[in-house]
Amino acid sequence: MANITLTTDFGLEDEYVGVLKGVILSIHARATIIDITHQLPAHDVTRAALLVEAVYPYFRPGTVHVVVVDPGVGSARKILAVQVAEQYMIAPDNGVLSRIFDTDAVDRVVSITNAQFFLPSVSATFHGRDIMAPVAAHIAKGLDIGSLGSEMDLDEVVRLPLPAIRKDAHGKLVGHIAAIDHFGNLISNIREDDLSHFCRVADKFEIQVHVGAHIIKGLADSYAMLEKGRPLAIIGSRGYLEIAINCGRAAEFYDVAAGAEVSVSLQPRFGNTL
Amino acid sequence: MANITLTTDFGLEDEYVGVLKGVILSIHARATIIDITHQLPAHDVTRAALLVEAVYPYFRPGTVHVVVVDPGVGSARKILAVQVAEQYMIAPDNGVLSRIFDTDAVDRVVSITNAQFFLPSVSATFHGRDIMAPVAAHIAKGLDIGSLGSEMDLDEVVRLPLPAIRKDAHGKLVGHIAAIDHFGNLISNIREDDLSHFCRVADKFEIQVHVGAHIIKGLADSYAMLEKGRPLAIIGSRGYLEIAINCGRAAEFYDVAAGAEVSVSLQPRFGNTL
Amino acid sequence: MANITLTTDFGLEDEYVGVLKGVILSIHARATIIDITHQLPAHDVTRAALLVEAVYPYFRPGTVHVVVVDPGVGSARKILAVQVAEQYMIAPDNGVLSRIFDTDAVDRVVSITNAQFFLPSVSATFHGRDIMAPVAAHIAKGLDIGSLGSEMDLDEVVRLPLPAIRKDAHGKLVGHIAAIDHFGNLISNIREDDLSHFCRVADKFEIQVHVGAHIIKGLADSYAMLEKGRPLAIIGSRGYLEIAINCGRAAEFYDVAAGAEVSVSLQPRFGNTL
Repeated sequence: MANITLTTDFGLEDEYVGVLKGVILSIHARATIIDITHQLPAHDVTRAALLVEAVYPYFRPGTVHVVVVDPGVGSARKILAVQVAEQYMIAPDNGVLSRIFDTDAVDRVVSITNAQFFLPSVSATFHGRDIMAPVAAHIAKGLDIGSLGSEMDLDEVVRLPLPAIRKDAHGKLVGHIAAIDHFGNLISNIREDDLSHFCRVADKFEIQVHVGAHIIKGLADSYAMLEKGRPLAIIGSRGYLEIAINCGRAAEFYDVAAGAEVSVSLQPRFGNTL
Repeated sequence: MANITLTTDFGLEDEYVGVLKGVILSIHARATIIDITHQLPAHDVTRAALLVEAVYPYFRPGTVHVVVVDPGVGSARKILAVQVAEQYMIAPDNGVLSRIFDTDAVDRVVSITNAQFFLPSVSATFHGRDIMAPVAAHIAKGLDIGSLGSEMDLDEVVRLPLPAIRKDAHGKLVGHIAAIDHFGNLISNIREDDLSHFCRVADKFEIQVHVGAHIIKGLADSYAMLEKGRPLAIIGSRGYLEIAINCGRAAEFYDVAAGAEVSVSLQPRFGNTL
Repeated sequence: MANITLTTDFGLEDEYVGVLKGVILSIHARATIIDITHQLPAHDVTRAALLVEAVYPYFRPGTVHVVVVDPGVGSARKILAVQVAEQYMIAPDNGVLSRIFDTDAVDRVVSITNAQFFLPSVSATFHGRDIMAPVAAHIAKGLDIGSLGSEMDLDEVVRLPLPAIRKDAHGKLVGHIAAIDHFGNLISNIREDDLSHFCRVADKFEIQVHVGAHIIKGLADSYAMLEKGRPLAIIGSRGYLEIAINCGRAAEFYDVAAGAEVSVSLQPRFGNTL
């Protein structure tokens, strides 16, 4: 009952995803393959890193997650097998697992070099098919990742310079839009925890969320508690501060793109607000 | 060999669908999960209602259909488990099962409230993940839906005011375009049965289908019986009157959108036609 | 552990793909169904023919490939079951298997006529659902394709006039862009073999690839060996000459569409180049 998930920027119009599955099923006929997404923006390692972090907590022990956003395919970049929270991740060593490496849950990192578990012929253009898919199938069948190559230290892997949140001179908590989802919701990089810490005094103060020149007052408990078409700030399903519009699209409403600044301030509940 | 189908407006670019599957497989490792579509227009409960009706007749007894088009997530709207024709449907009580409720096949409706079968932590923004997916997995494993909450009467559920077909003053059968499919086919809400009933005298008369100012004479037996590029009216694979173009796109040809009127008239076979 | 793959032009927004799967699983509950793609351009049999050829080498013996690009549905066109390299293909007899027929691997071709293995009611608009899906499920369960109808000779099937590569008066190898993939890579119809044969003298000569008025000198070993944004020619993962841009989109860079000419010439390594 081995689960293998696939997260790529391959799109769905070519045969690439199907071929990955053929390779996996040829090695491990009983694998259950789950598509996470194949519509990551091409070569967007940062975007992929966010997604990977959000997915694995919902899968069972032993699941193998294959992440193929691999602009450096054919170069000297390594390919990693990572054990994290009793699950496994296979990905290029290009930073796509950065947020995983930031957690305490990482048990082992192996640089995959043992060609015994690859397809017989390895191209320079499609390591997802020739290396990552077959390796994932072997792990799902029970192969110890130690057999794939030598262990690496966590300080040897590539990490993205993921923009951190910060406090500015006025005491605002400043982050940015990390992703815009299918519904046009603006997903920030400010975690629920960051916000709780920032807002311990929130009884007497009101949270205000700033996007461009706009201000949203207060945090909503659900999309539906507002009238249709009204903007709201909310802790979204990934555990990050989101800006949304009930039954609408915040991305168009605020005309912002990923990368735009989002900040949070506190205002006295009964005093003036900007 | 339990089948669980997923029908949502989540799109495919985020991790939302993958997470639903992780939740299901964590509870029921042997479930077979089938994507119906995740590309319903966001929040379009009416469009989803049509699709649900068209799908379940092709699945085996015991299949659980999860339908998550849920603009009211986090509000007081109920979540339903419905037994229909030896299959099960899990959906918000927002009318998305309206066409199912109109059939004689509904055996039981339960309002899902038993948190024992939910994820341990239930968000206000993603009941698909936190409630509907785990409940579906439990039903697929054999849970009786009676354990999920209390039964409801069919007159207690929300139904959409789905536009009916009617006869106008001139004896025309008047319906509308309920959906436009991937091929640009215009799928009306006029069923084959409605048409048969209307056209009993069709030996002596010719059916004429009206879209805007255009008239299509006669019903085709197949797309391919017409020349390429020719418009035709036909009973489509869902059992509804469709307007199509052989190897072309009727939606652009007629420049109409969902909701546009479609009507059917009968003309004496050898007399004048408009 | 029977695999059934699906390759169609159905898109993903309707219920059509889901219904195919329901039909298959109703007949063969243990089938593993793999989506290759459902986003082939509508009615584009030539494009589909390319894809089919690229997929099956990666699947295990016994796999059944269902290919539904079927503009002639409802006409007199046959439906074929083909045995190739211990696998099976089900497709309309419209040329979509042309490249398969060109290989030596084809063992048997059967014209499917035995309605015993169809859905009880066969529409004139959706043979994927009513004939091809159920037949595929029966083959995956072990049905001999000889039971489906009578055998045909290879010279009785429909073949597309797939454009061949040629040598022009100046000794250039001339082909065309057969497909543009998700990454904007231009995939030609010039195989690695064709190129090796053409370039036996490549030690002393340099390959030059011509697209429109542009020339790319030399063949790259990988996308990543060039700087970002630089165009390159490479043998792609399908085994054909491709034109790509490292981390970019060749289709937009060169502003060409499928069908455009691509040619290859040899220039003395130390002499003048055009």
